[in-house]
Amino acid sequence: MPSVETRDIDRSAQSLIDSLKEIGSATAAGELKRLGIRNVHMQGPVPMTPGASIVGPALTLQFMPKREDLYPDAEYVEPEQQLHRHVLYHTQKGDIVVVDARGDMTSGVFGAMMMTYFRGKGGLGIVIDGCVRDFAEIKALGLGLWLRGATPNFHTQTNIYPFAVNVPIACGDVMVMPGDIIIADDDGAVCVPVKLAPELARKATEHVEWEEFSRIKLSEGGDLRKYYPLSDAARPEYEAWRKAQSRS
Amino acid sequence: MPSVETRDIDRSAQSLIDSLKEIGSATAAGELKRLGIRNVHMQGPVPMTPGASIVGPALTLQFMPKREDLYPDAEYVEPEQQLHRHVLYHTQKGDIVVVDARGDMTSGVFGAMMMTYFRGKGGLGIVIDGCVRDFAEIKALGLGLWLRGATPNFHTQTNIYPFAVNVPIACGDVMVMPGDIIIADDDGAVCVPVKLAPELARKATEHVEWEEFSRIKLSEGGDLRKYYPLSDAARPEYEAWRKAQSRS
Amino acid sequence: MPSVETRDIDRSAQSLIDSLKEIGSATAAGELKRLGIRNVHMQGPVPMTPGASIVGPALTLQFMPKREDLYPDAEYVEPEQQLHRHVLYHTQKGDIVVVDARGDMTSGVFGAMMMTYFRGKGGLGIVIDGCVRDFAEIKALGLGLWLRGATPNFHTQTNIYPFAVNVPIACGDVMVMPGDIIIADDDGAVCVPVKLAPELARKATEHVEWEEFSRIKLSEGGDLRKYYPLSDAARPEYEAWRKAQSRS
Amino acid sequence: MPSVETRDIDRSAQSLIDSLKEIGSATAAGELKRLGIRNVHMQGPVPMTPGASIVGPALTLQFMPKREDLYPDAEYVEPEQQLHRHVLYHTQKGDIVVVDARGDMTSGVFGAMMMTYFRGKGGLGIVIDGCVRDFAEIKALGLGLWLRGATPNFHTQTNIYPFAVNVPIACGDVMVMPGDIIIADDDGAVCVPVKLAPELARKATEHVEWEEFSRIKLSEGGDLRKYYPLSDAARPEYEAWRKAQSRS
Amino acid sequence: MPSVETRDIDRSAQSLIDSLKEIGSATAAGELKRLGIRNVHMQGPVPMTPGASIVGPALTLQFMPKREDLYPDAEYVEPEQQLHRHVLYHTQKGDIVVVDARGDMTSGVFGAMMMTYFRGKGGLGIVIDGCVRDFAEIKALGLGLWLRGATPNFHTQTNIYPFAVNVPIACGDVMVMPGDIIIADDDGAVCVPVKLAPELARKATEHVEWEEFSRIKLSEGGDLRKYYPLSDAARPEYEAWRKAQSRS
Amino acid sequence: MPSVETRDIDRSAQSLIDSLKEIGSATAAGELKRLGIRNVHMQGPVPMTPGASIVGPALTLQFMPKREDLYPDAEYVEPEQQLHRHVLYHTQKGDIVVVDARGDMTSGVFGAMMMTYFRGKGGLGIVIDGCVRDFAEIKALGLGLWLRGATPNFHTQTNIYPFAVNVPIACGDVMVMPGDIIIADDDGAVCVPVKLAPELARKATEHVEWEEFSRIKLSEGGDLRKYYPLSDAARPEYEAWRKAQSRS
Repeated sequence: MPSVETRDIDRSAQSLIDSLKEIGSATAAGELKRLGIRNVHMQGPVPMTPGASIVGPALTLQFMPKREDLYPDAEYVEPEQQLHRHVLYHTQKGDIVVVDARGDMTSGVFGAMMMTYFRGKGGLGIVIDGCVRDFAEIKALGLGLWLRGATPNFHTQTNIYPFAVNVPIACGDVMVMPGDIIIADDDGAVCVPVKLAPELARKATEHVEWEEFSRIKLSEGGDLRKYYPLSDAARPEYEAWRKAQSRS
Repeated sequence: MPSVETRDIDRSAQSLIDSLKEIGSATAAGELKRLGIRNVHMQGPVPMTPGASIVGPALTLQFMPKREDLYPDAEYVEPEQQLHRHVLYHTQKGDIVVVDARGDMTSGVFGAMMMTYFRGKGGLGIVIDGCVRDFAEIKALGLGLWLRGATPNFHTQTNIYPFAVNVPIACGDVMVMPGDIIIADDDGAVCVPVKLAPELARKATEHVEWEEFSRIKLSEGGDLRKYYPLSDAARPEYEAWRKAQSRS
Repeated sequence: MPSVETRDIDRSAQSLIDSLKEIGSATAAGELKRLGIRNVHMQGPVPMTPGASIVGPALTLQFMPKREDLYPDAEYVEPEQQLHRHVLYHTQKGDIVVVDARGDMTSGVFGAMMMTYFRGKGGLGIVIDGCVRDFAEIKALGLGLWLRGATPNFHTQTNIYPFAVNVPIACGDVMVMPGDIIIADDDGAVCVPVKLAPELARKATEHVEWEEFSRIKLSEGGDLRKYYPLSDAARPEYEAWRKAQSRS
Repeated sequence: MPSVETRDIDRSAQSLIDSLKEIGSATAAGELKRLGIRNVHMQGPVPMTPGASIVGPALTLQFMPKREDLYPDAEYVEPEQQLHRHVLYHTQKGDIVVVDARGDMTSGVFGAMMMTYFRGKGGLGIVIDGCVRDFAEIKALGLGLWLRGATPNFHTQTNIYPFAVNVPIACGDVMVMPGDIIIADDDGAVCVPVKLAPELARKATEHVEWEEFSRIKLSEGGDLRKYYPLSDAARPEYEAWRKAQSRS
Repeated sequence: MPSVETRDIDRSAQSLIDSLKEIGSATAAGELKRLGIRNVHMQGPVPMTPGASIVGPALTLQFMPKREDLYPDAEYVEPEQQLHRHVLYHTQKGDIVVVDARGDMTSGVFGAMMMTYFRGKGGLGIVIDGCVRDFAEIKALGLGLWLRGATPNFHTQTNIYPFAVNVPIACGDVMVMPGDIIIADDDGAVCVPVKLAPELARKATEHVEWEEFSRIKLSEGGDLRKYYPLSDAARPEYEAWRKAQSRS
Repeated sequence: MPSVETRDIDRSAQSLIDSLKEIGSATAAGELKRLGIRNVHMQGPVPMTPGASIVGPALTLQFMPKREDLYPDAEYVEPEQQLHRHVLYHTQKGDIVVVDARGDMTSGVFGAMMMTYFRGKGGLGIVIDGCVRDFAEIKALGLGLWLRGATPNFHTQTNIYPFAVNVPIACGDVMVMPGDIIIADDDGAVCVPVKLAPELARKATEHVEWEEFSRIKLSEGGDLRKYYPLSDAARPEYEAWRKAQSRS
């Protein structure tokens, strides 16, 4: 049996990752639309860990429809041939695994032991267009989870099998290249094309200074036309508020 | 650019709204069936705020498939032309916004700033056959939310755009007229045709006196045939229980 | 009106049920696959009571598309003719009700009063390829719930009606025979064919002794290839750990 | 191996069947609605033999999700145990086989040899909420076919297996009792509850005498308001036309 | 009972319609994309009359989910209140009726008598995001038909009812304004926003002169890179061919 | 701009292809199931050219969700970069193109010019988990077509773009390797793993000699139990028939 070799990804500088940490998936999706990318939201995987918010480079795993002539049926035969293990071998601190599981609801891509290993290596979270098994144990590990669901079935029990590692994949109708940057939170998981990440990060530093002021005003019943976006009429009021803020 | 004018709704008397507050969506759906309305449950939007229970008149918003010749693509161009803002302008204390978003999972109908404004005006909650963005922030506002999901995308990012305010709409395969009364809780959101609301309210006052007694008996292993509905055989037992209750 | 008679199920020995209590749905699904049953997971019903984990024999209820010539439309007419009541009459301590509700999202198979009775008789939980109504009250009863959702509609309000009790049914694309054993937890609900239950129980007693050791190692960043499955290279380390464990 | 016994159906009098031959599925569906049956159209199976129009009693066959412990996997093992054969054994001249194949698109319920036998016994046609294999050969036999599609797979190749013969089934979300009368044509296949068939047949004899006249007028550009339904204003014109007709 | 009044549409000049007759839906969709309209193809309705190719202004009809308090259940009650008749009253020679039937597969929007009238008035064809009944008779009338299917059910038998005439609608996820121009053929039906029609017509007159030449070459095994699009290398060959053509 | 290079496929010997020509997709699917491959039928693409029956090696084309940063939006920009052209460049006489178009109904993978070229090079047919445009013209070319539908949209108009040529793909939930053999007819298109093709071809030569006899008997009303499969009781009759046949 030949040994399996899969390639690693090119990771962006940690400083770039860090600069994206406050931006959120909603701002990312909106800004990328303005940069010409219509839709970067992986639809299908939903947040299973409310409040979790992660940013990191994508390790990718691709499943294919089962072909019994190409892949054995049993779970424990020759673990080293099972590519869902190999994607985890590449894990570095801060990585996110993104899986094209073909939307399959009858296969659990990873179980608790795999995810324990992934967590032990510093993995941040997973985005799967499909399911995990051992959901309760996996949830307890503290990873961020964006999934279609859970199932008791193991990963090759029914229709699909792991086919390739760190190749371009489609997940939730979005194309993800290995090394692209994932931003995932309660609004969902988005894929930031790595080349566009610096420009997106720049946007993130443009602080919308009046937004906090407007939010307060709106929550008090203020007029939307006046405060969002901030109108000229409201600007003196805002400037006064800002001055008061800086004094306190 | 001409200014946009949209009409307000006729609101029912607050006393009518109040009289419906204890009835719940399940009783409403059942009674309306008996009044000849087969199905008033908006299917698709599910409760995102467990325990929330609201009753109020419907402001309505209708989305349409995008037509680039009729609507500009960008988010911040001419806010006053964006009709999802206009439906909120009409908000009065106790109102509920119902949106026909065509079941779209790729557009966030409202974001946090819009919902902060809505909450500031006294809005109770929203029912959307689609999604919001900024879900975590919106959830924190304390509104009742019946949605299909969340998305990072903004409201015109992909397939749909806001087309009309306070017109008849279809939401979750139920037709909703502006001003109809919405009852929404953990079973879902139902639309009460406004003309049928008084009759429904009357039903709500018919207290099923023996129900509490039966519930206790059933929880202790009592016979369903005897206690639900209350049989003649169980009536003396019930009368005794009621007497004992009134003494205490 | 003739009285309705429905048959009870044959229940497995409590000792057999007990022997399956620690196994979990994931192990059950995997082992049954190895025994030749490709898929025992009822897809569609999802866990609505996180953390709940139940094992018990299946009472079954089958719905059919509505035929107005065969079944009256109103809710309260002749309760004794309504077969969803009859399946509950058979409830014994530890039973689980499994319902083929045809995936229908517009009918609430059971309401709070029915479930209060079921709970009072010692019922453990329900698996429905469909919905309940009165969800909040039912959840408060402490039953395990695997459902597609909730609805305010009652059980015959729209498209389906209860047709047969304790007959073979299809639920979530899995065939369930009355008396089969259900194992349900956060990964979902699986049906254990009753004849295969003893063999499955035997598997459950085969403790994978090194698994706890491996889990610790993996959580510390240990090599997946070395610790899962346990390699010969890791065995001395494991033996030492086990010795240490037994001393403490 | 015990021999398999399945029951036959009660067939309506041929005169009743004959009286329904001119009525068509559209009139049948409309009249049955007026008799209180909301929807008798089996949705899913579509006409695969344009122009075919058949009426006859329903033999029924029910498939279930595969259970490998209950049914062997191979095609040719013990043909006499295969229930899809047994439903055909009951075929009499003029019969129609209706199959609940669970909407499955990956199993060919019948192949050419089975259908040749069915045709040889005088079978009229089949309605399947699923597929056949050997479609080209079956089409050549001259049977009426209402199907969801065709597939090269045999009947137990993937997910389902034949479970019961001449029992109540659900096909295309309509409940069909064995012996109910099927009317199928280019609009689809409807199930006539056998008890309602005589009343439906009576309706069929009520000739709408003015309909031919109106059709001619409408095809010439006549006013819909005047000619359909026939207005009092048009009645003299119609009477004159009828008189002219009877002369020729 | 008040009489129902619905408005007519503004029709484009016949010369504009005529100028679009040769263009076809594929060229129209491609050119409109270049003009900024991403997708004008009404998905869902498919061609039911192979070879039919029509161009004309859109009369529109909108269905809504049934509300029994707003619309009576029976087919023949007060025909003049039924709006599906009213849209046909507006028919002029060359018109096309486009219907938002909400994708419903259980309602037959029009029957044979309605379509006979439509044909008699000079109607060209219909596009329905839903079904007709009396399919065989309607097909025989010679209209162009783009439908999701056929059903024996009448138009208000189950879930929907006609709500508005000649208003903006969504059909097959495309917004259609009354008076927009429909181009429909074997590739499907597209909606040409009426303001963009002249520019589209201009494109249609730009004859791609070398296309016929290239088609011949390709059909003979010519190199795609050379002949499509026409390369400089192939131009002399093309010029020679053209000269030869004009001589003959 | 770098030139695009894509690899060709390894083609099986023509004699192997020829030996599969009489077998048909139904026999192929059944035999491959017996060889351990559960399902080789590409579900989704349906036969659009009734009666067509083709066998040949698979050229493969993979589409991916659109990424505007990776692929330009316009149709005619840099044709040589468009990979749907490149898969056709490899066409040899007898080839079949199989396309993973992700089930997309809004993109026309090929138009008439591409298919004219393909036909000119000797291509036999196409299998697409999606659509073509210019359907009428393509149908006239005489190719075998297995498609999900037609659309007026061009191949990159909406959601997808061509990403790779002659790589492993998933089409209709079946994995297809470049060079696998496709058998497609009125039952659908199946993928024969190329290594299993010789064994399948051997099966094809095993003539079921009694099948023609049985078919005649069944068509005359013969007993299925006696004639299919051929029973010992029927064998003398069959032998007599065969003798008579050979005399004639």
